[in-house]
Amino acid sequence: METIGFIGLGRMGAAMATNLLKAGYRLRVYNRTPQKVEPLVAQGAIAAAHPFEVAEPGGIVITMLTNDAALDEIVFGAEGLQDRLGENGVHLSMSTISPQTSRRLAEHHRQHGGHYVAAPVFGRPDAAAAAKLWIVLSGPAEAKMRVQPVLRAMGQGLFDFGEDPGAANIVKLAGNMLIGAAIEAMAEAYTLAEKNGISREALHEMISTTLFACPVYQNYGRMIAHQTYEPVGATATLIRKDMELVLQTAWTSLVPMPLADLVHNRLTARIARGRGDADWAELALEVVEGRS
Amino acid sequence: METIGFIGLGRMGAAMATNLLKAGYRLRVYNRTPQKVEPLVAQGAIAAAHPFEVAEPGGIVITMLTNDAALDEIVFGAEGLQDRLGENGVHLSMSTISPQTSRRLAEHHRQHGGHYVAAPVFGRPDAAAAAKLWIVLSGPAEAKMRVQPVLRAMGQGLFDFGEDPGAANIVKLAGNMLIGAAIEAMAEAYTLAEKNGISREALHEMISTTLFACPVYQNYGRMIAHQTYEPVGATATLIRKDMELVLQTAWTSLVPMPLADLVHNRLTARIARGRGDADWAELALEVVEGRS
Amino acid sequence: METIGFIGLGRMGAAMATNLLKAGYRLRVYNRTPQKVEPLVAQGAIAAAHPFEVAEPGGIVITMLTNDAALDEIVFGAEGLQDRLGENGVHLSMSTISPQTSRRLAEHHRQHGGHYVAAPVFGRPDAAAAAKLWIVLSGPAEAKMRVQPVLRAMGQGLFDFGEDPGAANIVKLAGNMLIGAAIEAMAEAYTLAEKNGISREALHEMISTTLFACPVYQNYGRMIAHQTYEPVGATATLIRKDMELVLQTAWTSLVPMPLADLVHNRLTARIARGRGDADWAELALEVVEGRS
Amino acid sequence: METIGFIGLGRMGAAMATNLLKAGYRLRVYNRTPQKVEPLVAQGAIAAAHPFEVAEPGGIVITMLTNDAALDEIVFGAEGLQDRLGENGVHLSMSTISPQTSRRLAEHHRQHGGHYVAAPVFGRPDAAAAAKLWIVLSGPAEAKMRVQPVLRAMGQGLFDFGEDPGAANIVKLAGNMLIGAAIEAMAEAYTLAEKNGISREALHEMISTTLFACPVYQNYGRMIAHQTYEPVGATATLIRKDMELVLQTAWTSLVPMPLADLVHNRLTARIARGRGDADWAELALEVVEGRS
Repeated sequence: METIGFIGLGRMGAAMATNLLKAGYRLRVYNRTPQKVEPLVAQGAIAAAHPFEVAEPGGIVITMLTNDAALDEIVFGAEGLQDRLGENGVHLSMSTISPQTSRRLAEHHRQHGGHYVAAPVFGRPDAAAAAKLWIVLSGPAEAKMRVQPVLRAMGQGLFDFGEDPGAANIVKLAGNMLIGAAIEAMAEAYTLAEKNGISREALHEMISTTLFACPVYQNYGRMIAHQTYEPVGATATLIRKDMELVLQTAWTSLVPMPLADLVHNRLTARIARGRGDADWAELALEVVEGRS
Repeated sequence: METIGFIGLGRMGAAMATNLLKAGYRLRVYNRTPQKVEPLVAQGAIAAAHPFEVAEPGGIVITMLTNDAALDEIVFGAEGLQDRLGENGVHLSMSTISPQTSRRLAEHHRQHGGHYVAAPVFGRPDAAAAAKLWIVLSGPAEAKMRVQPVLRAMGQGLFDFGEDPGAANIVKLAGNMLIGAAIEAMAEAYTLAEKNGISREALHEMISTTLFACPVYQNYGRMIAHQTYEPVGATATLIRKDMELVLQTAWTSLVPMPLADLVHNRLTARIARGRGDADWAELALEVVEGRS
Repeated sequence: METIGFIGLGRMGAAMATNLLKAGYRLRVYNRTPQKVEPLVAQGAIAAAHPFEVAEPGGIVITMLTNDAALDEIVFGAEGLQDRLGENGVHLSMSTISPQTSRRLAEHHRQHGGHYVAAPVFGRPDAAAAAKLWIVLSGPAEAKMRVQPVLRAMGQGLFDFGEDPGAANIVKLAGNMLIGAAIEAMAEAYTLAEKNGISREALHEMISTTLFACPVYQNYGRMIAHQTYEPVGATATLIRKDMELVLQTAWTSLVPMPLADLVHNRLTARIARGRGDADWAELALEVVEGRS
Repeated sequence: METIGFIGLGRMGAAMATNLLKAGYRLRVYNRTPQKVEPLVAQGAIAAAHPFEVAEPGGIVITMLTNDAALDEIVFGAEGLQDRLGENGVHLSMSTISPQTSRRLAEHHRQHGGHYVAAPVFGRPDAAAAAKLWIVLSGPAEAKMRVQPVLRAMGQGLFDFGEDPGAANIVKLAGNMLIGAAIEAMAEAYTLAEKNGISREALHEMISTTLFACPVYQNYGRMIAHQTYEPVGATATLIRKDMELVLQTAWTSLVPMPLADLVHNRLTARIARGRGDADWAELALEVVEGRS
């Protein structure tokens, strides 16, 4: 099996890379904070000292980074990928970033004879560890075909959104917005129940086994019902960035999204009160604490 | 099997009463518009000319009406139930009404030696027809025990929320608010996708088979994705009344609910534009039409 | 000059009654907490032990009470006004209440040959003390003519909104909503400025001497700029009741009012955090504290 | 008197430049659409074929452009000002732009020995024509002193917000947000009144001569009361850009601004329905038309 480059070993990236090793892929890995490379190396990955070293001509490099700026630095920085993927190389970009950045990077790789596939993922770190991510992808057909087995080693399902490299990113952003909306909705409903003498847990049990018997309501709902927000899956600061990308995309395409505004404001409020590093589902506490 | 009184044969009530007949119960039925009684009579029900005639001392009467005022008229009106249920009678109140009305009616029946059980339902008319309703109930333990088999003939699951007769109503209201929130969220997400070149259906297919693989997102989501809002399940006018009960309960218990406000405003806007008799899921059109 | 009955000697009522005494009117006064009568008695008013005692057949009775329920008790309670005003009496109702209550009371008085004039006021207690209130009125033309001199002794301007006894109440409610909106707007703008290194006071100074050189922005704006919310003019609890009347009127007339919702939610949040007795302008603190 | 450069002769700029001519200044003028230069030339201004030609070393150049991008092009474009103002030149930047752009341009001019003063204005085209603008300014003290007489020829009042070149822009953005909030508030209040049988004009007359007796409520309020939105002062498209700058500044400084979101969404909705070129006060129509 071929050697794949993997850049970005945070909570999500480390779990995803581990699954690639388990599936038999060889990996060259890079992370800005070098210590995070160690567990992967212990499992057989080769550590790279600089981003560009994970790439080989015509190969595949996966990026799983915090935001657009980090990805730009990995590609265009002094020690970045630049054109190292060359002819037929594939940049498999799995971070949650803006559609604009995806389109720009796709153009960059195209100019060097390579390909860019956007493939952001849904799932928290435990789903990543269990290879149970849902993966949405978009980009050129041939490159998508090539990376399919790689993606299948990390996820339980793939959804193809066509050739526009920005499309998968928009789907990912829309999905996060839907999750944030569900959190706000449950926070309001459970708090209304509680203030009227009904147990949060009893309401959660009912709705999450009937009308809303699905992962988002079951998993986030459990946190909101029990008011336990640890361990941290994704931070308020991280997801607020996603909500800004949602809103900027909405601005550009003239879609008023008052519910997305509400979720964004909840996250801003959490960060303003020093909870930026807590799980973003804590936005439910804004409701519990009687905030307007 | 005993004879049960059933008052209110709208889209939901007619389907529920039919299932009771199928289960072997004998029914005395009443509806304000008398023609709606006919299909039930054709299946063996006995038609009553006035509400009070459906009751017999110590028996069970089910009410399934549009709102608090209709229920008050049925109980306290000149030809109403009044104290006809007498000692040990049970008023099984399945309408979506306010917790205050339930508590007031419970007190009324208690004073005449009877019982009141609130048992509102979740499910659209097709679910009612299939005896697949989810039923939430609250009230005195003994009376709840007695009506269990009756409820099981109409639903696929019961959830008990204790003795407060208002509790089940609050759960029902909270549930409708959660559905409204999901409709708004999907409307915003699908419209964002569409305005960016992604098919509404493709996004719906992805989210409703993964993160949101549950009845509300699947069924309402299909309407929102395909933009087909017929046949009408529950009208905008009907559900807006529920949202007002949600907000009034929230006011009393000091819970700011901005998302419930948003859903309520969407429904108000639909009605103001002459769409009060359309399915309430049409609130999604407010987003599609670019309204703020 | 004739003797006028005056019921309700809170912050506002006491100041208004004092101005009537200064203008030469004789007053019979009643207040539920009897001590509040004393300063007025010291200035020549006659204390009544029960509400009905302030009325004389064909006379004028002014009511200035906290809410609809208090007014109902004063009129319909065991010791209430009932029909004591008789033929040609005028109930001059200056409280901030719902249009429905005004219409109901107007009907009650009409049935006894009397008249009802709604005349709610704009202005905080210091404006009341200075006889600088703005008064909006509605009701039957003749009765409005008769009470004009009485109103002029308390205010600096009258605005007539026709014959519907509910009209003046709606104008009052709309006015309070406009003030609440201005508070929220200034809170957001001043906080944005402050978080960007610009003094709240400097921004306030600019806007309140130019674009917004008017009492609401000058007076409430000073509180919001300086973050000093004392002395208390009107409490959060009091004005939240007004916002609920705004929203209920909006519901009935199918007007979505998201900004009124926002103001209402801010007040609810203040009360939920124990600040119900503070000045309602403290809703600005929700913004300052970074709440969403 | 010295010769001043003036770039940008839209509705506002043309009126401002005319006042400078009236005050005795000589002007070199540039506009991208050259025909707009003609009325100024007829009054004595000298037409420049390219932006850089309006500048002379050590002189003053005023810019009054649509947005940040247009200003960037005027300064940094191939035929732009670049460093033509040289030692002691002053760029007097009167457009409504982001604080970031002001800070960046200030740094640019400082590096060439020049100065940058931000001086955005409040007032619609008729106020500009009457030299009745309110001008807020920030930048280095000496340069502000030098441009004072120039600014006084265009406005009726100056407000100094210190040395940060971005401060005046933030004040301008905050001011526009306050105006937008007032429009939304009036739209909701007047519509509530109208739907309850009270004339929009009567309510407007009352509030704009008492509590809200100030230019914004008088002038915008007249449009909203009479539902006449012509002639166009500032378009929805133009001001929506300002609201985006407000929100981006709010995001950066962690201030949730739900009322600013609401105003922004209203404008987005107008543009989505093809009214981007209409006056932005038409956002009031969203309320009138029963939108949520």
